Amino acid sequence: MLKCGLKTPVFSDFLNVDIKEMKNDLLIRAAKGEQVERIPVWMMRQAGRILPEYRAVRSSVNGFKELVKNPELICEVTLQPVDILGVDAAIIFSDILVIPEAMGLNYEMIESKGPNFPKTITSEQDVAELTTDVIPNLEYVFASIRLTKSALNGRVPLIGFAGAPWTIFSYMIEGKGSKTFSQAKKMLYTNPVLAHQLLDKITTATIAYLQEQIKNGADIVQVFDSWAGVLSKAQYVEFALPYMNRIAAAITVVPVILFAKDAHYILTEFAQTNASVIGLDWTIEPAAARAQTKGKTLQGNLDPCVLYADKATIKKETEKMLQSFGGQQYICNLGHGVYPDVNFEHAKYFIEVVQDYKL
Amino acid sequence: MLKCGLKTPVFSDFLNVDIKEMKNDLLIRAAKGEQVERIPVWMMRQAGRILPEYRAVRSSVNGFKELVKNPELICEVTLQPVDILGVDAAIIFSDILVIPEAMGLNYEMIESKGPNFPKTITSEQDVAELTTDVIPNLEYVFASIRLTKSALNGRVPLIGFAGAPWTIFSYMIEGKGSKTFSQAKKMLYTNPVLAHQLLDKITTATIAYLQEQIKNGADIVQVFDSWAGVLSKAQYVEFALPYMNRIAAAITVVPVILFAKDAHYILTEFAQTNASVIGLDWTIEPAAARAQTKGKTLQGNLDPCVLYADKATIKKETEKMLQSFGGQQYICNLGHGVYPDVNFEHAKYFIEVVQDYKL
Repeated sequence: MLKCGLKTPVFSDFLNVDIKEMKNDLLIRAAKGEQVERIPVWMMRQAGRILPEYRAVRSSVNGFKELVKNPELICEVTLQPVDILGVDAAIIFSDILVIPEAMGLNYEMIESKGPNFPKTITSEQDVAELTTDVIPNLEYVFASIRLTKSALNGRVPLIGFAGAPWTIFSYMIEGKGSKTFSQAKKMLYTNPVLAHQLLDKITTATIAYLQEQIKNGADIVQVFDSWAGVLSKAQYVEFALPYMNRIAAAITVVPVILFAKDAHYILTEFAQTNASVIGLDWTIEPAAARAQTKGKTLQGNLDPCVLYADKATIKKETEKMLQSFGGQQYICNLGHGVYPDVNFEHAKYFIEVVQDYKL
Repeated sequence: MLKCGLKTPVFSDFLNVDIKEMKNDLLIRAAKGEQVERIPVWMMRQAGRILPEYRAVRSSVNGFKELVKNPELICEVTLQPVDILGVDAAIIFSDILVIPEAMGLNYEMIESKGPNFPKTITSEQDVAELTTDVIPNLEYVFASIRLTKSALNGRVPLIGFAGAPWTIFSYMIEGKGSKTFSQAKKMLYTNPVLAHQLLDKITTATIAYLQEQIKNGADIVQVFDSWAGVLSKAQYVEFALPYMNRIAAAITVVPVILFAKDAHYILTEFAQTNASVIGLDWTIEPAAARAQTKGKTLQGNLDPCVLYADKATIKKETEKMLQSFGGQQYICNLGHGVYPDVNFEHAKYFIEVVQDYKL
């Protein structure tokens, strides 16, 4: 099953990969708004618990973080959905919380509970102590990207990613997941100056991180704002959008996908950024999104729960969605990560339905 | 502190209370779209953990459910925010999960974890076994309403409430709270017929429950769709809206408030129901909501986290919101329940700012 080879390729092997060499570049062309013959499709969290092959790798290591820091295994689990599900892109297997860790804030991943930061950010001193010189601390990610890129051998594009500054900020303040992220939001109201200082540092680190992912082989990058939905529009505009803007403006060599879950109110503003693609969750109607985002490619947005249904329902719901989006300037995906208890045969069928859809 | 008296008043004392007798009927007039001299204000979850007086009552009983079933204590905690915070309405202290229990599905409230149903609904047989004849099982709620109504003596209106059918359904399938309610949603895709059977029964029970609350003294009722946000618009239209419609159509003697948290996509449809008031969470822009809900009163929608801030910020954010909504056809509230760790002095200040606001 190991497809990645033991010899770590040298850096220069992957720099400036010619896009024409890519056998399936549908995703990149759709992202850029170019014509495609069929709709490209991938799934958020496609590498992971739905695949028995992933679970086998996962159970061979001691913990999630051990997996994330092992380039050989990362390469393997990143390729699995390409081989097994036939998706049109690989996304490097990693975690958005590698950034706070690289900035100096360690976390542990607690089995079936999620991340936990023993220390959180509470003061100006805490923010000052964080480094934005994160590249040396993230070499394991770049090594994983190089290895995966080599193993992919141009079959499909490789997606790099990072958490959005607001989402990373939320974890750094809250210390763990939360329904309301009320502690993180509290800081926005009680100490906006400190909040902006921290958001600024996260953004600087994130831009460097994404640029280095691209140098090492990422063909496109996605920024995940998982906790956008706890903010009002006014807060998003003040505390999140400027940083998303900065990231989108800084990444010029590959397309950027912005995905802010539950931030239904921000599509018009996202359409003004330099991002090529706007990701949508399933609460957004395709037609409404099109009207607000002229010129951008859209990505999404099937309700992940559709994959619980029988195949006839999966086909019906998927095709209804494809029709709503139209075939161009569109990347098919779920509206959020695939749920861990979904039967991978259903996920595979979803991919097939999209790939069989005639434009 | 006990203000409710030990003698349970007889039913007829409260039937057909003349609205003109109410000393402060701002909320009712605003709900009906009548002119008001100042904006009425209350807070979702106003009776509860933010008040030391509530915590004293809560710690005097063995568990949450013991409190919910004690009319004397319910009366006391329902009046507390009227006395202490000066809100313009009382809302009967209870729980949305009394309905599944009255239908035959028991739950336990686990300290700092939330509700848990030892048995959930998985089959047609399970649905068939549920009763819609819930009134006899909910006498403790009606007794609480009668007692509270008597103790209020017309000072402010008394709000009755129920969970929305979709939200109640979610708990009955899922058995507990969830980030995604993926099990409940799974049934919508895999067994929509059974889902509708259950939703229909919940709706029948809920209408009877709300009508009985009104007979016993509720001056207005709110339907809480707490988990609306996990549904797509198409799903909400199919599995939630018809039942909200039925409830709004069935309640004709007092105004109805519909509040579907995170269902930003449903405002136009709610505006077509017989409900008088539409509740908004803080992700909805007031102007956008006004444009979609002509003729309805709006309620909401301050971010509950604003109450963490200093008083100057609370005043600034609250007044900005009041200005956006305009003074008429509007009931001021938070965009969700007040968070338990909010300083009650801040909550009180929020109420004062609204009540001091000059129209």
